Amino acid sequence: MRVGFASDHAGFELKEKLKKWAEKQGHEVVDFGADGTEPVDYPDFAHLAAVNKDSWERLALICGSGIGMSIAANRHTCIRCALVTSNEHARLARQHNNANAIAMGQRFTNFPQAESYLKTFLETKFEGGRHQKRVKKINKI
Amino acid sequence: MRVGFASDHAGFELKEKLKKWAEKQGHEVVDFGADGTEPVDYPDFAHLAAVNKDSWERLALICGSGIGMSIAANRHTCIRCALVTSNEHARLARQHNNANAIAMGQRFTNFPQAESYLKTFLETKFEGGRHQKRVKKINKI
Repeated sequence: MRVGFASDHAGFELKEKLKKWAEKQGHEVVDFGADGTEPVDYPDFAHLAAVNKDSWERLALICGSGIGMSIAANRHTCIRCALVTSNEHARLARQHNNANAIAMGQRFTNFPQAESYLKTFLETKFEGGRHQKRVKKINKI
Repeated sequence: MRVGFASDHAGFELKEKLKKWAEKQGHEVVDFGADGTEPVDYPDFAHLAAVNKDSWERLALICGSGIGMSIAANRHTCIRCALVTSNEHARLARQHNNANAIAMGQRFTNFPQAESYLKTFLETKFEGGRHQKRVKKINKI
């Protein structure tokens, strides 16, 4: 799968670790930055990933809390981004909301947890059915 | 403070409890539904709260996981909605992201937790400074 990654400075280290993990799993990694731990602005990287939607199938966004990334990413109608703090959130984001992006917070989520959430997110299928109607309504604003 | 509440069927019970708590605290409660536990579609209620932005200062959105509500609410440029699963998330949502809405999941968050998160969310101030520039960029898509 083509998996996009984006972070700010506060999520850079976790992004780098997750990229290596994804490559080992055989995924194609697309990196939208940040490129280091110098202070940057999270919306720049969420928006860059969004305008390059054609280059990825799933997206992982990491900042300090995950909150800023999830708000900025969901400004784009091509993204359904879930802030994930457990495997159950990652599973439901796919099953019920057909999320194509997850946001995580490096302050809250260590690497083994993040790896597990991302794995669940990549492996879980959308349930469709009654959830499809609801997902369609998300963009009817 | 004028506090808006919206839920779907899966968040109805928690919404009702939080409304009572908010009223006891002296807040003005604005309820956008749902009105019971019959299955409904979460985006309808997120969008209804958004188009009535003038009637509330802070908004609490509750569905099963909080994910669907947070995605739908953040489609609106007048809303910055954080999916909150801890007091620390509630605090950072205000301090760093100037969030005016929180989403919670009735499956994940019991009433004492939700009350605590909402209290933190209502009482915490935005830090401004370097965060102000970032928040402004959220809507520059």
